[in-house]
Parts: sequence; C-alpha cells; structure tokens
Amino acid sequence: MLQSQLFGNTLKEVPEDVQAPSHQLLLRGGFIRQTAAGLYSYLPLGYLVLSKVKRIVEEELSKEGIQQLSMPVMHPAELWKESGRWDEVDEVMFKFKNHQDRELCLAVTNEEIISDLVRREVSSYRQLPVILGQIQLKFRDELRPRGGLLRLREFTMMDAYSFDRDEKDLHESYEKVTRAYHKILSRCGLDFLVVDADSGKMGGKFSHEYMVRAESGEDTVITCDQCNYQANQEKAIFVREHKNPNEAQKPMEEVTVPAERGLTVATQSAFHKAEPWRILKTIIYKGDEKEYVAAVIRGDLEINETKLANQLPFRALRLVSDEEIKELGTVKGFISTIKLSEKVTTVIVDESVSSVTNFITSPNEANKDLIHVNYERDFQGGKVADIASAQVGFVCGQCKTGKLQETRGVEVGHTFKLGTRYSAPMGLKYTDVQGKENLILMGCYGIGVDRIVAGAAEQHHDQFGIIWPDSIAPFHVHLIGLDLDDQAISSQAYELYEELKREHIEVLFDDRSEKAGFKFKDADLLGIPLRIVISKRSLDKGGVEVKKRGEKEAEIVAVG
Amino acid sequence: MLQSQLFGNTLKEVPEDVQAPSHQLLLRGGFIRQTAAGLYSYLPLGYLVLSKVKRIVEEELSKEGIQQLSMPVMHPAELWKESGRWDEVDEVMFKFKNHQDRELCLAVTNEEIISDLVRREVSSYRQLPVILGQIQLKFRDELRPRGGLLRLREFTMMDAYSFDRDEKDLHESYEKVTRAYHKILSRCGLDFLVVDADSGKMGGKFSHEYMVRAESGEDTVITCDQCNYQANQEKAIFVREHKNPNEAQKPMEEVTVPAERGLTVATQSAFHKAEPWRILKTIIYKGDEKEYVAAVIRGDLEINETKLANQLPFRALRLVSDEEIKELGTVKGFISTIKLSEKVTTVIVDESVSSVTNFITSPNEANKDLIHVNYERDFQGGKVADIASAQVGFVCGQCKTGKLQETRGVEVGHTFKLGTRYSAPMGLKYTDVQGKENLILMGCYGIGVDRIVAGAAEQHHDQFGIIWPDSIAPFHVHLIGLDLDDQAISSQAYELYEELKREHIEVLFDDRSEKAGFKFKDADLLGIPLRIVISKRSLDKGGVEVKKRGEKEAEIVAVG
Repeated sequence: MLQSQLFGNTLKEVPEDVQAPSHQLLLRGGFIRQTAAGLYSYLPLGYLVLSKVKRIVEEELSKEGIQQLSMPVMHPAELWKESGRWDEVDEVMFKFKNHQDRELCLAVTNEEIISDLVRREVSSYRQLPVILGQIQLKFRDELRPRGGLLRLREFTMMDAYSFDRDEKDLHESYEKVTRAYHKILSRCGLDFLVVDADSGKMGGKFSHEYMVRAESGEDTVITCDQCNYQANQEKAIFVREHKNPNEAQKPMEEVTVPAERGLTVATQSAFHKAEPWRILKTIIYKGDEKEYVAAVIRGDLEINETKLANQLPFRALRLVSDEEIKELGTVKGFISTIKLSEKVTTVIVDESVSSVTNFITSPNEANKDLIHVNYERDFQGGKVADIASAQVGFVCGQCKTGKLQETRGVEVGHTFKLGTRYSAPMGLKYTDVQGKENLILMGCYGIGVDRIVAGAAEQHHDQFGIIWPDSIAPFHVHLIGLDLDDQAISSQAYELYEELKREHIEVLFDDRSEKAGFKFKDADLLGIPLRIVISKRSLDKGGVEVKKRGEKEAEIVAVG
Repeated sequence: MLQSQLFGNTLKEVPEDVQAPSHQLLLRGGFIRQTAAGLYSYLPLGYLVLSKVKRIVEEELSKEGIQQLSMPVMHPAELWKESGRWDEVDEVMFKFKNHQDRELCLAVTNEEIISDLVRREVSSYRQLPVILGQIQLKFRDELRPRGGLLRLREFTMMDAYSFDRDEKDLHESYEKVTRAYHKILSRCGLDFLVVDADSGKMGGKFSHEYMVRAESGEDTVITCDQCNYQANQEKAIFVREHKNPNEAQKPMEEVTVPAERGLTVATQSAFHKAEPWRILKTIIYKGDEKEYVAAVIRGDLEINETKLANQLPFRALRLVSDEEIKELGTVKGFISTIKLSEKVTTVIVDESVSSVTNFITSPNEANKDLIHVNYERDFQGGKVADIASAQVGFVCGQCKTGKLQETRGVEVGHTFKLGTRYSAPMGLKYTDVQGKENLILMGCYGIGVDRIVAGAAEQHHDQFGIIWPDSIAPFHVHLIGLDLDDQAISSQAYELYEELKREHIEVLFDDRSEKAGFKFKDADLLGIPLRIVISKRSLDKGGVEVKKRGEKEAEIVAVG
C-alpha cells in the first residue's frame, strides 16, 4: 500500500514509564496505541502482524487435526459455579449483571463453556479423541497491567481443549498440541524454552510453559548448565546438599539472647557467628480459610509461595500481620516451629530441614534461642515437602550435578493435563466399547497471541526499531521513493511498486514527499525485512538499493 | 476432512420455541449451539461458514482502501461520557466496575474509541480521508434475544468509520463503503434491499439499512410498486391524500355523547357514523425528561414512535398511564388537542391534519365531543411533521403515484453519515491548507457477520436443510462413501478423497459406517453444494454419482 495513506504515525518519543523494548518500539512504530490501562488498539500495521501470527497459529493447529470453533466471551455464572471456580478466580474476573439481574462474567479461560458444549455432543467412545480450539478474546482484571502487550486486561488468546478416553490418548493429544506449539513459535521466529510449570488454578498436575527469552519478561526460568532441565521458578527442583555432614548431633540447649540479637536471619546468624544455613526459619501465613500455616525452612533458602500453596487445600495465602503474631502468643523474630501456638494447625517443613545438623532457632519466646536443634529428634512438623525457591548456583534436581542458572522470559504458551478436574464436577462422560460409562480426560492449552507479537519485538530489534521476522512482518518489502518530484524517477518508482504487487509481494511504498533521512528513520521503526530505495542516486548507480533491515550494507540491483 | 472425526452432531429435532428456519436448520445441521440466552457457540462447521463470511468482508473492504485495525471491546466510561452517550445507551449496554472501582462497559459500537484514536493521530488535511474498520465482537443487553443468530447478546460485527474534510469527501467515503457492501452481500449469495433508514441513537441524518429478505425478519421494509423507493418502516414517507376535498368547513359544535360512545377510534367513528379518518386522535406520551408530549394524528393512521422521537430532543418515550391521564385532568377516550392540559408542553401534529375538513374530536371532557373541527382554524399544535407509519396501499411519498408494499427483512448492514456528531464533543479537528482548524466529518458503517450467516440460511434452504451458497459453504464437496466394508470400494473412495484434497477442493468425506439413508439425510442438513456418492451401485454404473444440493437428479461421472 501507499504509505501516504497509512493510518498511524511513528513517534520520536514515548512516555518515560514505557520501559520494555517491545512496548517502546511497538508504540514508536505506530503498531499499537493504548486506549486505557491494559486496553490496547492495534493500528493497521500492528493488525497486519497480529493477523499473520493468528494465521500461523490456525495453520499449525489445523495440521495436527485440532478443529476450530468459536465460543462466546460472555459466560453465565451457572457454569462457573458448577465447576466450583466462580469464587476461586474472583480476583481477576470481570463479573457483572445484566438488566434482568442475571450474573455474567467475561472469559478468563473456557473450560466451563467447552465442557458444557462437549457433554451435550459426546456420549460414545467413537466420538473421541477430539481436540477443539479457538482464537478469541480473554479478559483479566490485572491489578497492574504492564509492558504494552506483555500484560493486558483484554487480550487475544488461542485456547484449545482435548478430550480423551484414557491417559495414553490424553498424552497423545498433549503431544499433538506440543508439536503444533513448537512449529508455531519457530515459524514466528522466536527463541523459546519449554519449562516444567506449576498448574495453578487450572487444576491438574502435568503442565508446561513456553517461555520466550526476554530481559523484560516477568517470569524467571531456571535452567541447568549441564543437563536439559528447564523449569519455571515456581516449579524448579534442586538438591539440598547436606551442609555439615561430619558434625555430630549435640544436646539441645536454651540460651538467653539480648534484644540486639536482631530479627532477621542475617542478624541472627551474625549474632551467633553462624552461617545463615544454620538458622531454622519459620514463617507464618494465613490462608483464605482463616487457618494459620507455618512454613519451616533452612535460613539461607526462600519460601516459594506457589510451592507452599500447592501443599495446601486452599490457595490464597498471605503473611500474618504483626497483630496476628501477637495473637499467636509469640514475638516477631522469635517465631519457631518449636512450641508453636496451637492455633497454627498446619506445618509444612521444607526438605532442607534434613540438610543441617544442629540448627539454631527459638523456643517461641522473646530473648531466647535454642541451639543444637535437630530435625526428627527435636521437631517434626506436619509434612515434609519442596517449598523452597530454586536459585542460581544450586545443584540441579534432575541431573544432580549441574548448577542452576536463571533466565528471564515472557510466557507465551501453556499446556496442561487436566485429567478429570472439570469432567468430574461437570459430568463429561463417554460410554466405552463394553457399554461402561467413564469420565472423559481433558487437557487444555493456551497461546497468548499478543505476547507472540511482543515477544518477537523483544527478541528482534536494535536501537532504531523492530526487525520483524519475515513470517510475521507487516509487509515484506519497504519500497522507498526519493526525488519523486522528478517525473522520470517517480514513474520508475510507481512502475516498480506495481510490479512488486503483481508478483504478490507485500509492499509498502513510501510515496511521501519527505526527506531521505526522515524516511529511513521511519523505515527502521517499521522494521520491514527488506528495504528497497529508488532514487536519483540509486538509478545513477544502475538500479535500486536493496538492504536487509538490521544490516548495514546495501547493494545495487538493476531494475526494469 | 473425515466426517467420522468432525465435532458436532446433526439433530432430528429442535425445541418447539425454535421458529426461524435459520435457527432451526443451523441447530439441526450442527453449525451452532446455545450456551445461554443470546450467547451462541459456532461448532466447527459453523465456524467455517463464519470464517468465509469474514474473509469476504475483509477482502471487499480492503479493495475499497478501508484499513483494518483492532480496538478493545472493553471501554473506559470516560470516553462514552465525553460523547454524551454513557446514559443514552444504558438500556442495552453491559456496564461494570473493575476491582479498582473503575467504570467500564462492553462495546455496543466504537465511535468513542475510534474518535479518541483518530484525534491523537490526525491533525492535518494531508492525513485525510481515511476509513478504518474492524471485525470484532459487540455486545447488547437485549431484553429478548431471538431466532438463534438473528438477535444475539454477543455478536460479531464489522464496524468501519470514515474521516473526511468536507461533505463531498464524506459522500465519496460513503459511496466506497456502499460499493463494498453491495459486493459483500452479493458474494455471500444474499438477495437484499437497501433502504432509507432512521439514524436512531447514532446521530446524523443520512443513513441506509441493508435488508436481507426473510419472512422471519423482524424489520418491515416498505417498497413502492411503481418506483424504486425502499425504506424502513420507521422512515418511509407517503402521501396523505385529502379525504374530503369537496366538503366545506362548517362551524365547530359541541355535542354531548353518552359513555357508550366508546373509547377507541373504531367505536367513536361507529357512534358518529363517520369514517375513522374523520376522527382526530391525540395520544399522550411521557418523555425521559418527565415532559408530557401530545401526538395528534388522523384516526386511520398510526403514530410511528421512532418518527415522533426524532422530532423531540429526548429519545425515551412511553405511553402515559391511566393514572397520569387523570393527573392531566382528562378522561381516557376523551383526550384531545383542544383545551389540552398545560402540563403537556410539547405538541407534534402529523401532516395528516391538513387532509380532512371537519374532524371529530373531544374538548378534553368526558361525554363531550366536538364536530366540524378544522386545523388552523380550531387548533394549531406545536409542530407539523411526519409522525405516521407508512402502510400497505398508501401512496408512495417519492413518486406520488405508486402504492406502498411491505416486505419482511433481516437488517445485516447499516451506513450512517454522522457529520460532526462525535467530532464536535470529542474535538476531532484537522488543519486545512490555509492553516485553519476544522471539525472532521465522520461516517460509520456496520455489518452483522452472524446475521449474514443467518440470512443466507433463511434465503437458501428447503425442508431438508440449508443449501449453502458456494462462497460461504463449509466445504465445497461432500463425498459420501457407501459399502466401505468392501475393500475395493473403500480404497477407491479414499483415493478419490485424497485426489480432491490434492486439487485443493474443500471436501468433507463421510467415512462413517452408517446406512445410505442416514448419510443422505445428514448431507441434506449440512447443505454442502456438491454431493458425490461413491458406492457399489455407482461404480457398477461406471463412476460416482454427482448431485447438486437442492436438485433431484444425480448424474454418473467416471472416475480414476
């Protein structure tokens, strides 16, 4: 098309709070505009990119036999109540009533809607397996939308759902989607990691995240420097090496400590002249059922609240207030798993409690510490589990030899085996060959289409603008006409433009009466893969100047 | 694809309250399913139809230079307040607050959002004209959704907006969209009318509706049997022929009438032994500003409330209650424009008041009538206007000779010249060649994508199912394999299936182990344009049986 007619301006500057490179460059290139916090419009150039991503998603899903449909984004509350999620996802859901006082919400995901659809169509094993998907808007009431397309309140997502007879078939469906995901992200030009992930509120136990490497991503991915282990920080496993295997257990002793002992692990270990790992740390949380939970861990490790929540029957957790610490009859800084208040009904102990002999902790009394405290002998706790965050330098939990490393990433996809999480409460059943009724096994799969656009911009840019991968570039050729007031040059330029169109090459023709420098800067911002300049100079040299976006050298190619 | 893998069943029966043919057949063919009132899912077959309609819409808009973008469907209240429509469209809008107590709504249309976008990008005459459009979800809190895809609470709509320097350019933009509309609807195989329409809450004066002829449509279109006049009933004009041109005016007289005179025009005219047209009818409405409005009209005509509302500065109107009639100091059946209560501040008089000499009405008193009442001499009213509904048999207001006729239709498109309705309150300005600031003139344009699907089903079906137009059919060929347990036939059938796919023919292959009659019934319900049957019988006859959907005769075509 003619650039003189293209809607949307390039911008020299963006607001100071715009930080992520994709956010900056998508705004500056005239690809997107904010309508309100977390609500964005795609201008025509951005829409072209979005459409190409959508097409790639559709093509690859279709190749794996995933059937496309379309579900409403407005959902009746009844279905969400049936699955038990109406209250669970309240935090991020837009809920409202219509004029007839009926409760509705906007799609966060669609397990409930598709389950309702499938239970009405499927009754026999002959109708399985089936995988259904759509590209449709989703909505999340994010407290803090950020990074342009990175975290939106309204976004475009591909969501697919598989329905299977048994675990083997479910795994095959999962593999089909996995294959499609690899092709989609590769075709979109993305460097990505597939990581073990936490299933969160979706339910199910088996899940993977697709992470596009990007400094401005808000997710931390843990990888091993020796083996192929890759996991979300909320899931990553590591080895808790024994810190002092050669030390013998000593009898537990109570010692009096002054207030100056300090309240943190750091000050406590300094006071006792002991390594932080020798401190046994206890942190009290309050759950959404008003229950108090103690998490016990080695002093040099951090509690991972997602891992902790996965050990509990409820998910909402928060740290107790100073007020609540007093109510429990203890003192800040002297909380401990020893002589814990009876109000603390659940204790989860990190696996690291077996990795130290002779811990230091407190007996839940001010100005007192216990030394030579040993797991099993002196305290037990309720349940031993992995509730610690993996950190850089820790030993990999898979190969047990490599060291863990950290990478920042943007989550662009997620796959889950749901099992019967939804088919049980919603009654998704099929009759097998023997005539017996069974629950259908489900999987669910999501790809953030806007995040692919943002991820591509994060990975492919320089200081001058985005460098779009061919597959999702808004146009393939940016034809730049200079000296167009010269009739001869102008007619050659338009001729070339028409010829490119005839060859079905997607071309944007900069026909504007602007200076060369201005046009080149715009071309860099637009990031179209191939730039062709036609000017007096290029024609004098024997043709047009052809340059790849991101490269410095142009070459002269004869035309006509 | 293989029909054995296709998700979605055909249905023998649909619920009794499903009446419109499109609704029945789209359900029975497994194209759509209801999730809740006014909320539908498209199953894979229906989604294919929807996608083809979308593609046609996009292609034709693009040919006319309309640039595609994408706007959020969730809107901040502020922009709707800026245009003054936040309260105006309250009745059909879904409004809600997010967790931070911010007011939001779902898109009914997007004038506010696009105006905000354009005012931030456009400042110079050089950036105009521009037409921008999108295919996106819209939401209307319909009191009574009906007819499947005919009236939805959530629907897919193409909405486009033009921005121009002056009336001439606006008209050119309007013509471009009009051309695209004609091509879109023709390509989708629809028989449609373009009618003069009321602009309603969109503002502006010039507008057209695109009506697909269909018995189950809820719109009435008025056409002339002589000229090309076509209009929505809410807009249609007609000639009010003088009923008694040769009668001389007589002096007004008051007569006493018994209660048995009756309260309706029919009983009143019977009592007076006069034609209904001789009764002068006055109807009192209450507006949303609590104002009382009297509408005065000839007794044989009906008030058209849309036309009436267009004469008023407010839009919400309702008939007064019996209670309110008493408050106005009058009696039901004896209301009249003569001696009207002072509380009735606005009087609108239909043009028909000049078409009768010597009306009969009441002096706003029980048991009294006035005879020989004449317009201008005996009553004036506030404003004379066209507030009557056109009816079958009336004289056409355009050619003044033809008779009006009625057709039922489904509105699939609407075009409006908005002028400065939004650019004035929202400050959409451009600087002209002389450096002077002017308001931008806007147009807006909508196409109901779901309604095109429904309209096509309304117009193209028989008692056995839909007969899809080629352009939007889910597949082009329905290959039906019979006797597939015979290895030789089966391998020929699969070979043919593969060959059709190689030729890029969209083919659905009925590979199921069902009886012939069952498969043919399904094929009729699916409505794929060309049916090819491969069976022992057809092969014995020398090939495959080819039949067009909707035709009876099949012919044998050799294969291999």
